[in-house]
Amino acid sequence: MTGSTAATFTADDYRARMERAARAAAEAGLAGLLVAPGPDLVWLTGYAPTAATERLTLLVLAPGRDPVLVVPTLEAPDAAKAAGASALTLRDWTDGKDPYAATAALLDTSGSFGVSDNTWAMHLLGLQRTLPDTSYASLTEALPMLRAVKDTAELELLAAAGAAADATFEQIRDVPFAGRGESEIAADLDRLLREHGHAQVDFTIVASGPNGANPHHEVGDRVVERGDMVVLDFGGLKDGYGSDTSRTVHVGEPTDEERRVHDLVREAQEAGFRAVRPGVACQEVDRAARAVIAAAGYGEYFIHRTGHGIGVTTHEPPYMIEGEEQPLVPGMCFSVEPGVYLPGRFGVRIEDIVTVTEDGGRRLNDTTREMVMVD
Amino acid sequence: MTGSTAATFTADDYRARMERAARAAAEAGLAGLLVAPGPDLVWLTGYAPTAATERLTLLVLAPGRDPVLVVPTLEAPDAAKAAGASALTLRDWTDGKDPYAATAALLDTSGSFGVSDNTWAMHLLGLQRTLPDTSYASLTEALPMLRAVKDTAELELLAAAGAAADATFEQIRDVPFAGRGESEIAADLDRLLREHGHAQVDFTIVASGPNGANPHHEVGDRVVERGDMVVLDFGGLKDGYGSDTSRTVHVGEPTDEERRVHDLVREAQEAGFRAVRPGVACQEVDRAARAVIAAAGYGEYFIHRTGHGIGVTTHEPPYMIEGEEQPLVPGMCFSVEPGVYLPGRFGVRIEDIVTVTEDGGRRLNDTTREMVMVD
Repeated sequence: MTGSTAATFTADDYRARMERAARAAAEAGLAGLLVAPGPDLVWLTGYAPTAATERLTLLVLAPGRDPVLVVPTLEAPDAAKAAGASALTLRDWTDGKDPYAATAALLDTSGSFGVSDNTWAMHLLGLQRTLPDTSYASLTEALPMLRAVKDTAELELLAAAGAAADATFEQIRDVPFAGRGESEIAADLDRLLREHGHAQVDFTIVASGPNGANPHHEVGDRVVERGDMVVLDFGGLKDGYGSDTSRTVHVGEPTDEERRVHDLVREAQEAGFRAVRPGVACQEVDRAARAVIAAAGYGEYFIHRTGHGIGVTTHEPPYMIEGEEQPLVPGMCFSVEPGVYLPGRFGVRIEDIVTVTEDGGRRLNDTTREMVMVD
Repeated sequence: MTGSTAATFTADDYRARMERAARAAAEAGLAGLLVAPGPDLVWLTGYAPTAATERLTLLVLAPGRDPVLVVPTLEAPDAAKAAGASALTLRDWTDGKDPYAATAALLDTSGSFGVSDNTWAMHLLGLQRTLPDTSYASLTEALPMLRAVKDTAELELLAAAGAAADATFEQIRDVPFAGRGESEIAADLDRLLREHGHAQVDFTIVASGPNGANPHHEVGDRVVERGDMVVLDFGGLKDGYGSDTSRTVHVGEPTDEERRVHDLVREAQEAGFRAVRPGVACQEVDRAARAVIAAAGYGEYFIHRTGHGIGVTTHEPPYMIEGEEQPLVPGMCFSVEPGVYLPGRFGVRIEDIVTVTEDGGRRLNDTTREMVMVD
């Protein structure tokens, strides 16, 4: 389970990304970037150690210097096999030695650094103690858009992941719903995503009836009944890039209210989508979707942000949320997923991944957004 | 996939653990403990959110105050279902609000806090920025032994996980090795661990021939050949508690040197095991195993520490390593796993989980440590 998750990219691609990141760091006034195992490290180097552990692995990118990966001696042979390994220098440290001292030797002792969000606090504290005059900001805060603008190859991978999610939805429509447990339908989603090329499934939400009113309900023991609305929200990674789509289906004939709420969410999703174009602030996408729901009197039931970025993870910047003034740039990819959640009754969410084009947005999911009836 | 991983424990158990932790924090001069999703949170509350995300979830334990779990509004319903939920207060925060301000309101503004090792750096930086007069130490540094001493119920769960790993080894002996890829045998290990009750498999190392000389080789494309030594190292979680065992088998008849090295590692493992008793420093276990290997002239080929703790994770304090002066206490559980790694040739590792008793040690794995021949 070691090495690259996206064999599509070469050492030259990773070298270019690392150079771009170092340049962005310099422009932001940073002395460098420190990147622990996780999505940033995968994106920058193609290296994904088996597990994040208490042993420090850290990529050091400093403007004007060659990239160095500090790595436990034990894991150095695996790191050396990563797709981007030839674009960096490995510096290994052995159990019992101080990895923070080894890292500190590579750093400006009074510099300000961007550190990947998910770096363990233990490691950050080790660096802060070793170099008390350094300062740090999370990578999302310092360089929120580092991975946000996708290149052509990345867009193709995201489109392929989206198409696989669409194929999954087309097939899940045909499985039986009534009388089966949520977890059985979730297992179908998992199987279909994998059949359509996903190596990793991150979530398979099946939220039926009143469970649909909890946006983060995953699955439970509940047996789906005739008359239920069922929120389906599923995604994962295919060839290292993410899918994430939601549709809300109905078992049998919906009531007028169910239809009305579904139409409302569909219109809100459409409004969010139509707001997407270069130069528009992220919060405008949220506002556009939210305004539709608020105008219909359901504002208090739309209890989450409208969307999140996607790439080598299924949740990342940019966020479509009030207060996010980042302007959209062609190549950004994110979800547009408004919802209405009526406590104790039902919920509706409709979600597509959208990429910003030169003059608007393009959906990377495109199954029908009309309500689908299932059995 | 939310909630408790060890249904064995009640809200009262979790309450007692949280009280014990808060007391230990006070004794260590800390104003409190801050615990993000991960093994510490599982152990303290039974709560394991689906995924660690950019949204802050943080348990705040302060001596003399009731425990509070800061949690995203979206995830509050799931958190409320955790086995320990009734022993704490949920305080939720909604997308767009500042979770660090919400947390800061619960904290001594100039206190020193222990923070779980794997808390995201992003969250630690958020707290440091919001409360600039606070200071932090990682939980492993501040209270390394917080989870180290297991109670009776925990010991039973670890023994059951060890027995499942033993049963896996007894069955893997009988599968064909020669002519099959390492990854096929690893898949057999995965299947057997699950058949014996593991809900999570953390590693299934199959390192054949020269691959065995890399202690962290997982699996590769290599096809196992007659004449190979094969290091097997596998484990995961059964009912929320860990297994981790290694045996080195031989495909066909070993050479004299292979026998000699295997005997040496077996003797080193025995020496490490015999060093285990209350009051002995962790490093003495490492020294005892290492001395055997060094005396035979193979010291430079034993390139890792002798062991690590195990509990709700498969790698945790205490570490059996030079420099670790922590005395052993009855109820501690850890691996004793010396190895010899001959670059380009082969490796041998033998590993059991051992628990400290009133007067020595007790193995939680107990398959033969003699070299096993496989086909």
